[in-house]
Parts: sequence; structure tokens; C-alpha cells
Amino acid sequence: MLQAISLTIAIIGAMMAFPALADFVAGHPDWTVFAVAAGLNLFAGGAVWLSVRRRDTELDRRHIFIFVPTVWLVSSLAAAMPFYLSNLGVSFTDAIFESVSGLTTTGSTVFSNLDSMPPGILLWRSLIQWIGGLGVVVMGMVLLPSMRSGGQQLFQLESSEKGDKPFARSRVFTERIALVYLLISLFCALTYMALGMTTFDAFNHAMTTVSTGGYSTSDYSMGLYGTTSMLFASSFFMFVGGLPFVFLIRLQAGEFRWDVQIGWYFAIILGAAAIVLATRTDATQDPVLHEIATALFSVTSIITTTGYASEDYLKWGPAAVSIFFFITFIGGCAGSTAGGFKQFRFVVVHQILVNRLQQTFRPHQMENMKYGKRRLDPSIAASVVTFSFLYTGTFIVFALVYGALGLDFETAISASATALANVGPGISQSIGPAGNFAGLSDPIKWMLCFEMIVGRLEIMSVYVMLMPSFWR
Amino acid sequence: MLQAISLTIAIIGAMMAFPALADFVAGHPDWTVFAVAAGLNLFAGGAVWLSVRRRDTELDRRHIFIFVPTVWLVSSLAAAMPFYLSNLGVSFTDAIFESVSGLTTTGSTVFSNLDSMPPGILLWRSLIQWIGGLGVVVMGMVLLPSMRSGGQQLFQLESSEKGDKPFARSRVFTERIALVYLLISLFCALTYMALGMTTFDAFNHAMTTVSTGGYSTSDYSMGLYGTTSMLFASSFFMFVGGLPFVFLIRLQAGEFRWDVQIGWYFAIILGAAAIVLATRTDATQDPVLHEIATALFSVTSIITTTGYASEDYLKWGPAAVSIFFFITFIGGCAGSTAGGFKQFRFVVVHQILVNRLQQTFRPHQMENMKYGKRRLDPSIAASVVTFSFLYTGTFIVFALVYGALGLDFETAISASATALANVGPGISQSIGPAGNFAGLSDPIKWMLCFEMIVGRLEIMSVYVMLMPSFWR
Repeated sequence: MLQAISLTIAIIGAMMAFPALADFVAGHPDWTVFAVAAGLNLFAGGAVWLSVRRRDTELDRRHIFIFVPTVWLVSSLAAAMPFYLSNLGVSFTDAIFESVSGLTTTGSTVFSNLDSMPPGILLWRSLIQWIGGLGVVVMGMVLLPSMRSGGQQLFQLESSEKGDKPFARSRVFTERIALVYLLISLFCALTYMALGMTTFDAFNHAMTTVSTGGYSTSDYSMGLYGTTSMLFASSFFMFVGGLPFVFLIRLQAGEFRWDVQIGWYFAIILGAAAIVLATRTDATQDPVLHEIATALFSVTSIITTTGYASEDYLKWGPAAVSIFFFITFIGGCAGSTAGGFKQFRFVVVHQILVNRLQQTFRPHQMENMKYGKRRLDPSIAASVVTFSFLYTGTFIVFALVYGALGLDFETAISASATALANVGPGISQSIGPAGNFAGLSDPIKWMLCFEMIVGRLEIMSVYVMLMPSFWR
Repeated sequence: MLQAISLTIAIIGAMMAFPALADFVAGHPDWTVFAVAAGLNLFAGGAVWLSVRRRDTELDRRHIFIFVPTVWLVSSLAAAMPFYLSNLGVSFTDAIFESVSGLTTTGSTVFSNLDSMPPGILLWRSLIQWIGGLGVVVMGMVLLPSMRSGGQQLFQLESSEKGDKPFARSRVFTERIALVYLLISLFCALTYMALGMTTFDAFNHAMTTVSTGGYSTSDYSMGLYGTTSMLFASSFFMFVGGLPFVFLIRLQAGEFRWDVQIGWYFAIILGAAAIVLATRTDATQDPVLHEIATALFSVTSIITTTGYASEDYLKWGPAAVSIFFFITFIGGCAGSTAGGFKQFRFVVVHQILVNRLQQTFRPHQMENMKYGKRRLDPSIAASVVTFSFLYTGTFIVFALVYGALGLDFETAISASATALANVGPGISQSIGPAGNFAGLSDPIKWMLCFEMIVGRLEIMSVYVMLMPSFWR
């Protein structure tokens, strides 16, 4: 356990070399901040790693539940260091918020005037989203199935041993995932460059696109580069980031194996974009193709939990607000960088409903739930149900708390939703696509951090730790 | 089937004698409207009843699913007649809306200037809520359990035969329910009179309190009589209306048998009232006891799905809006006049969560779900789950449609929630406690009617009829 945690910190420290280099080349004094933070993290992580690396790392089931949140917490602290130490005057709370929002690939920001920020900070924001996205995919494919987390056991890797040895064959998968992830990011960056972005912006946005993170190098988010072709291209790469990476790995190996959730994912995005387009009531002078691109881009951005904006979609009429609120909850596919409820759970819920409604008038009918062509184990359906209730309950409780702490209704409920689903923007003016999270009070920011991590950990694993019987 | 439907219509016709009498005594010409409507319904219902009364009424399971919504639809049409025929200039849509909102004991109104309306119309609004509330209780105790509707099979009456003969012993229960219902209503009316209401207002409000309906004889709702003692008294009787009537029947027979959902019901109301009180931020000059009464009254009104208001609680600060939105969904106990998600489902969901979370880290632990001291059948838990998803889904779909039809976010989502839970007021200024539903467009009103009936029918039974396999 300590081995993996210390290694993570060392990696985060090593990553800081990139922003240090960027600031040094740009002649910005902040490079020393990154150098110092890199040194601290490399030293701390490296020292612990060297002292524990020979220990046996077989973890039992309960240790994993403790290990996973610990990695997220420690990484968030490490990644927040450059924000706090920089000369931007960032408070401790804001540094943690930006770091958690980055690593969990949420993308809610407390920073403004991004356009005039030193390149190091901008690159660091993108890098933590990129590394966070990779972490999410690895966690989703290697750890969550053995944690039986909200039905993710459905995606138990076939060749891995079931149950208590999740680390056993995970290394080879991690390497293949990392390779595919790197390739897609590179391809995305090159596409952005070809469509007119500067090299720096292209690499930054590629990292926050494929990780479905949503940090940008500009206060205008993608609005600065919002050409029709750019919006279509960005929609495509966000969509890819929300696909199951096991599907992408197989594709890269020349094997095409369909996952039924991909069909739902595609249909829901297209359907939502069509509805947004049909109900848009504001006067717009844009050509039709650009309007289509804008609707598709905005909807894909929210459903993949990226959180980019090319314009303020809340001004598209009353329907837009409702639609963008509810699609905040949806999320991408399991085993992707995306957060949210996730597509496979819609498949499972649909199967539960069809079966149960039939049993209402045909009480003796046998249950016959399926996931694609496979039989769906009732225990997986039960996990999905549990996840659904906890997801809804967590959303409601925090929305109420934010209301009690003084946020207006729309801000309170959309802040809770967007943090829990790791999306980014809310649906009120203050925290919407044209606003940011700087104006919220510190207690609310800390609670949003908690929600982002809870959402990222697929909720159940956190509640498990809150049960007294877990510790007995 | 026809027997019961025609009898219902005849009863509704007969009930119209009361408003006819009220208008006649007051010297208002509307009495003829009620007399004509009464005659039509009595004739139509009576004629059909006489011709079919000797037929055998054994219904199979699927017939019940068709029978129950039909009764609601036909009754709504019959009860709308006086509104439409009166000289108040009520449109057909508005007449149906007021009738559906009345019979389902929702209490959303399209009428204003209630204070200057003829007594007949006011009495009729109260009467349909009162008869609707009785219908809901009878349906909930006699029919829904055999329809396996959302877990209501948990309340299968012990002495009734299981399964396909729901009418068999239902008459004796119906009579006992009606007696208790009448006694509570009388006691409520007398209490209201003792606390200062006019006789007419006391009887009207008693009928809409015990049925958790919420229609009032004044645009100010209970604000006209909002003394501290009146608010406590009204809270008490709304609370009683939301109790399981099987519990009340047994109590009347001298038998005390606890139902675990009552504890939750009581705790949730007290908890919500405490939170409302603690987070209220507006300046108020009222004595503390009156503030407590007002908070308790407002919260009880929404959780019991009554919908009275004594003042505009939306002005109590930002937290109030969030709280009153979320408590709209909760509802009273199963087997009561209240709508909503219902308390027993919280008990069941709690059991599901505790069991499932433990199985996450103890995969071999046996399932051990309980309802109070009884073992909870997994099929009941599954029905509750199905209900939960359909309830949430229905709420979201209609909220989106209302948004697409031009309603602002708060109005759209709270209109959908308040109709589905049969509560009454929403949380926006237009349809809130100080507003009414007159300003909405006709298509939205019809969809709200649909949602009110779907909510009243406990949702699942409606979706069952939408399945092709039901009709095969």
C-alpha cells in the first residue's frame, strides 16, 4: 500500500519538471516554485518508496477500500503545492480545490485571468487532469471491479484473478492503457494544431480533452477557438475519452468487441443535442452547421463530464437550463475517464425495470436480465441500485447544505450535481459556463472537494468506510 | 368492473346535492348547475349500475390494472362538470385540471378570488378532495397490494385472500375506513370551529386537511386563520391524514400496532421543521412559538402532500427554497391519503443500502433485510426499487418537457415534482404558495393532470399498461 502511494507522489513530483521547464523557457520566475515542489515530492515519495519497495503488496479486500481514497487525498495535497507556493496569491483552500478539481478531472476552477497566467501554472493544471484521467481509467479497470463498486464488477477483466489479488496482473494492463491514452492525446493535440491552435494551447487542451477534465488556458474556455471544425473535432475526442478503455485497447490490438453501453452513450448524446437544438429560442445569426456543432459540443462536454464551453449555453432559452442541469448527472462509459452515473447503469436499470414491470402482472415469470448478450447477475443489478440511491442521496444532502449556507437554489443544486458527477460548470450565472467557483465560501469549497472525490471513487467505497461494521 | 365505475359516478352525482343546497340557501343561481350535473351523473351512473349490478365481479389481475385508472379518469370528468357549467367562465381544461387536482388530493388550483366565490363551488372543491382522499385510502389498502405496486404488497391485509380476489373482503374494510375517516374529519372541523373558523370554512378546511388535499376557501389559504394554535391543530390533523389508516382503524378498535414507517414519518417532519427554523434568515417580528408553529405547519403541509400555506415560506431565505423543493418528494405513510415517495419506502431503501454495503466488503454475508421486526421479502425490495426509478424518471422527463415548453427552471422542475407527489404548490413565485397554476398553458395543464393521476396510481400501474407484453 505504502509502495503505491509513495510511487504516486514521486511521479507527481517528476511531472512538475514539465511546468518548471515551461516557466524557465518563458523566463518566468515561477519555475523555482515547481523545482522546489518537484524536489520535495520526489524526495518524500522516493524515500518512502525505497524503504518499502521490497515488501509484499498482497492486499486484502478491506485494505483496498482504505488504499484508494488515501492515494487520491495524498495526490491532491502533492499536486496543490505549486498553486499554493506560486506568487499568484492563491489561498490554501483554493489551491486544494484547484488540485482536487484537476486530479478528479472535474474542471471547476477558482482561477480567473487564465489568459495572462504564466505557462507553468497553466501546464500544471492540464497535466494533473491528464494524469488524473489515466488514474481514473486504471482504477476503474483494475481496482473498482474487485471492490464491487456500484456494479463495476461487471467489468472484471477476464484474465485477472477474481477477488483478492487485484494487483496481480494489473501492470500489463496499466501499460497498455497508458500507451493508448498517450496515443489518443497526441493525435488530439495534432488535430487541434492543424485546426489553428498554438502548440502550447493544443497540448494543454488535448490533455484536458482526453481526460474529460475541462481545464482551459483561457477564461473563454474553447470559445477562443470555437470554429465549427474545432468544435466537431473536440466533441469527437471528448467522446473518445468517455469510451471504455478496454474497448479502445482491444481496438488498438485489432479486436473489435462491442459493449452495449457504447450504443446508449452515443444515442443519449445525439438525442440531447437534438433536443437542445430544437428548443433553442434565442436569436442567433450563426450558420446552421455551426449551431449544430455548438449544440453537439456543449452537450458532449457535459455528458462526458468534461465541462468545456464555447459560449454561454444557459442563454439559449429556458429549456437549455433544465436540459443542461439533468444531463450533468449522466456521465460517460464505465472504464473511461468520465464520471457521473455512467452509461452501463442505464442499461442495467432498464433491464431491472422491464423485468420487474412484467412480474407485476405475471408474478411467476422468471427473471431474465441481460447486459448485451450476457446474463446479468442479480448481485450486479443490486450494486447498481445501491449506487443509484447513494448517488441521489449524496446529491440531495449536499445541495441542502449549500442552500443552508446561503447559496441560491440553482447554484446550490447544480454545484452539488456538477461536483459529484465530476463535470465542472453549474447552471447558475455565478458558477455556470461563463462564471467560476472563486466566489464560494471556503466551507463550501471543502465540501465540493469532498463531493468530487466521493464521485470519483464511485461513491459506494466511501460509504463503506463510514459503516461501523467495516472497521470491526 | 362497470358496476364499480357506475356506482362511483352515481356517488359523485349524489354528492353534488350538498353544493346545490349550499348555493340554494345562499340564494346563488349556481345551485341549478349542481342540480343539473347531479341529475346527469346520477342518471348515467345509476342506469349503468342497474343494468350490470347482477354480473359477477371477479376480476383477474390484469383487469384491475385497467379498472383503477378508468375509475380515476371517469370520476375526474364527472367531478369537473360543475366547474365547467358554472357561470365563472372556467375553460374545459381548467375545469378538468381543478377536478383532477381535487380528486387526487393534490390541491394545485387554477382558481383565484376564492374569497368571493359562491359557496357551492367552494364546497364542491372541498368535497371532491374529501371523497378523493377516501378513495385513495381504500385503493391503497384494498387494491394496490394485489397490484404489487411499488412494494405496497407489504401491506397486504392479513385476512384478505391473496392474489386475484381483491374485492372479496374489501367491503367490510371500506366501511371501517369510511367511519374512521368521517370521525377524524368531524373532530377536525369542530377543532377548527373552536379555534375561530366560521362553520362553513371549518367544514371545508377539515375536508381538505384530513384528505391532505389542501384546497382552501381563501386565496390566502390558511393565512386567514394563521394563529399559533390553529397552525398546531392543523399540523396535527394533516399528520393524522398521512398516517396509515390500517393503524387508525386498529386504534379505533382498541388495538395498538406500531408500523415502523410512522417513526420515520414523525422524525422526518420534526427534522425538516428544525432545519427550516434554523436556516431561516429573513427578519421576522413573530414570537418564537409562532415561528415554530409556522415552520412545523409549512413542513407538515408539504410532507403530508397537503399544500396549505400560512405565509410565503419561499421568502424565508435561500435554504428554504432548497428544503421545500426536496421535501416535496417525500410524502406520508402508505395506506394514508398522502402521496409522494412514501415513508415505508425509506425504510426499505435503508435496509437495501445497509445490506448491500456490508456485502461489498463481506461478499459471503447473508442478506438480512427487515421491515420493523418482520423479514422483508426481496421481491418487495425490488418493487420499491422499480418504483424509485420510475418516480425519478417521470419527474425528470416532465420537468424537461415543461422546460422545453417555455417554463423557467424552478417552475418546470417544481411543477413536475409537486404534481407527481400530489402536493400542490411549487417553489417558484408563479406557482408557489403565493401563486397559482392559472398562468400555465393548456398543454402543460393537461400534462400536469396526467402526472397527478400517475402519482396517485403509484406510478408503476401506469407503466405496466404501457408495456406491449401486458396486452398480449
